Amino acid sequence: MSQLPVVEIRRREEFCAAHRLHAPNLSDGENLALYGPCNTLHGHNYSVEATVRGPVEPGTGMVMNLTDLMRLLQELLIGEVDHKYLNTDVPFLADVIPTAENLAVAFWNRLQPQIETFKGCQLTRIRLYESQNNVAEYCGLTTP
Amino acid sequence: MSQLPVVEIRRREEFCAAHRLHAPNLSDGENLALYGPCNTLHGHNYSVEATVRGPVEPGTGMVMNLTDLMRLLQELLIGEVDHKYLNTDVPFLADVIPTAENLAVAFWNRLQPQIETFKGCQLTRIRLYESQNNVAEYCGLTTP
Amino acid sequence: MSQLPVVEIRRREEFCAAHRLHAPNLSDGENLALYGPCNTLHGHNYSVEATVRGPVEPGTGMVMNLTDLMRLLQELLIGEVDHKYLNTDVPFLADVIPTAENLAVAFWNRLQPQIETFKGCQLTRIRLYESQNNVAEYCGLTTP
Amino acid sequence: MSQLPVVEIRRREEFCAAHRLHAPNLSDGENLALYGPCNTLHGHNYSVEATVRGPVEPGTGMVMNLTDLMRLLQELLIGEVDHKYLNTDVPFLADVIPTAENLAVAFWNRLQPQIETFKGCQLTRIRLYESQNNVAEYCGLTTP
Amino acid sequence: MSQLPVVEIRRREEFCAAHRLHAPNLSDGENLALYGPCNTLHGHNYSVEATVRGPVEPGTGMVMNLTDLMRLLQELLIGEVDHKYLNTDVPFLADVIPTAENLAVAFWNRLQPQIETFKGCQLTRIRLYESQNNVAEYCGLTTP
Amino acid sequence: MSQLPVVEIRRREEFCAAHRLHAPNLSDGENLALYGPCNTLHGHNYSVEATVRGPVEPGTGMVMNLTDLMRLLQELLIGEVDHKYLNTDVPFLADVIPTAENLAVAFWNRLQPQIETFKGCQLTRIRLYESQNNVAEYCGLTTP
Repeated sequence: MSQLPVVEIRRREEFCAAHRLHAPNLSDGENLALYGPCNTLHGHNYSVEATVRGPVEPGTGMVMNLTDLMRLLQELLIGEVDHKYLNTDVPFLADVIPTAENLAVAFWNRLQPQIETFKGCQLTRIRLYESQNNVAEYCGLTTP
Repeated sequence: MSQLPVVEIRRREEFCAAHRLHAPNLSDGENLALYGPCNTLHGHNYSVEATVRGPVEPGTGMVMNLTDLMRLLQELLIGEVDHKYLNTDVPFLADVIPTAENLAVAFWNRLQPQIETFKGCQLTRIRLYESQNNVAEYCGLTTP
Repeated sequence: MSQLPVVEIRRREEFCAAHRLHAPNLSDGENLALYGPCNTLHGHNYSVEATVRGPVEPGTGMVMNLTDLMRLLQELLIGEVDHKYLNTDVPFLADVIPTAENLAVAFWNRLQPQIETFKGCQLTRIRLYESQNNVAEYCGLTTP
Repeated sequence: MSQLPVVEIRRREEFCAAHRLHAPNLSDGENLALYGPCNTLHGHNYSVEATVRGPVEPGTGMVMNLTDLMRLLQELLIGEVDHKYLNTDVPFLADVIPTAENLAVAFWNRLQPQIETFKGCQLTRIRLYESQNNVAEYCGLTTP
Repeated sequence: MSQLPVVEIRRREEFCAAHRLHAPNLSDGENLALYGPCNTLHGHNYSVEATVRGPVEPGTGMVMNLTDLMRLLQELLIGEVDHKYLNTDVPFLADVIPTAENLAVAFWNRLQPQIETFKGCQLTRIRLYESQNNVAEYCGLTTP
Repeated sequence: MSQLPVVEIRRREEFCAAHRLHAPNLSDGENLALYGPCNTLHGHNYSVEATVRGPVEPGTGMVMNLTDLMRLLQELLIGEVDHKYLNTDVPFLADVIPTAENLAVAFWNRLQPQIETFKGCQLTRIRLYESQNNVAEYCGLTTP
């Protein structure tokens, strides 16, 4: 079989949620100093982008059906976090300080095993926008 | 003195806030039926746009200094609502169900008297974006 | 009863469709001269915005439930035109040259009677984006 | 002949230009106090939107050919101001302090007579964006 | 000669086109099951971004003239696909199922040899947006 | 201590500035031929994005406080270049032809040492937008 091009596809979904940043092992004063106005309850229109890499299947012209990727994002992520208070209402975010960084990692951990079930596909990036100005991105890397 | 062109200028500012929609005179079940997922605590990256109409002053080329309009929006609106929980944290929104409609009206009522103090200027529109898809706009009209 | 603020709410939806501009009463040469590259089959990511005006109901803080407006747009418009060839696949666009102008008028005619059934509400504007650069807007006006 | 729908079409074009705000009848100190950082040489990616209203011609489905509107904007406006220093390089802006307000009025004055030559068409609005946050809009109104 | 910084430059262009997804080796029913609504004729406002990497030439401050990159994109890609039906009207897409993945690969194959003719330059990425939500990206990788 | 996820955070800021492209070692004619309309004085609404990579500190959920990153961008970059003429008004851009490429490199060189002072953090990318269509990106690479 001849060589196949390896392409990345990306799907974006949006959700609206409330959060506040508060570290349980810090005092109220330390939290306010650390997080500033983000220490108080507020919210965002978030966007999440998932990137999947794989060979383009010649018969279909697709790495993975974008409809399947959309459905996974809706079922595993958006359906759980949309119109929710991230600090208390989302089981898979229990004990997670809902910073952009931690949300990107938690979304990766939840989505990655499902992407692996698609032949030849791997999740390569989760990008989480709190706003157009603030973004966090996780690719599955860890410290040694 | 010759005729002057009458121009509208518009300034946009953004803020992040949490809210939930809950009508005090309805039961919990009625609230859930009415507002659906918006009945639970969530949040948005809001945008607010204020439009001011007036003659262009020939010596300056301005209706009103956009810097003054920006400052008014920051002091009267953004500074009060950014990184806040609109249902409980904002004095001028007390007793207001924080729908997009009510926010647009409350912002108009707060900003309009200050715009009037600028010679020849009138506020003509407040536009409030909950998201790119949901907008409310108030021009000061009321029912007869 | 006291005076109520009259507010406009606006909902945006998107759809993807193919079209070509071809006037039945013109020759092929005249069509090409008139419409240029738009005479050939191509397509767009369209956006449609519907604006509804009415008094803000004090008990709910709403002109009309944005969820109802979204549902109407989905059922009456998006469900009919999304992923379609506008020239032949959409019954309510039969015999309509699918210019931005005609789409805005056809969408108004289809949506307006349904908005009227909501107490105190009127449709005040349909805005149709072919792209960020090309827009048509219809408010129900006609020539005398 | 039956009544025709009256529609507004809008075309957006972009240009990049330098400007500074400096009123000739004010001292340097007064200019700095009035315009702040806008008193120094800087620049913008501007957008200009022109809105034209007219009946939809039944044979073509168009108010006016958007290609003609685009061409007029390119020839009369963009070709004159793109990649220019607005204070000194543009003949039709001589003696104009290049505020957003004055640019909107100058663009209206230059474009409006040409739109009138299209049967049944009138220019109804020029919108000038200095940025997404700062906009000026002129509809041809003047003080009494 | 001293070390030079290696920079990536990126140019974005847009085009409007129609397409449908239909695999020739599948039945109509299989195509509908696989591609869903994308099996019917529709269209998009596409964006394509080309990224070129190379050393910054000290005398000009450029990796490659962005005007040359724009011209190549216009001549090789946009001029061929804008306002076209991708399934039948574009010679270099013959026998290509016009998924986002396949378009990204076909665009790379067409553009890459021309970029190589610019001293020190290499094409490093083609990004193809069907919409803000659906993207495909190709960097020239293939399966072993 | 257990492995920590390594995340990239990104902050975007905007500024407005004037520039012209003119190489000191070329004649006026050569400059015009090389840079075209960019050889004349014009300007842009620029965006700059800085990406920082590091482990997510478990106690705070952050790679680096986004507020610190925003402050650094404001102090080191935006405060120096906003509402300025890049060719003459900015000390750290003296002798730099202000192409997008050179701005990205100059911004990297100015920001990178400060990011290094944050424990475990490294600057991984500076992205400079002249417009939505023209972008330059620098990651600290140099020719051998």
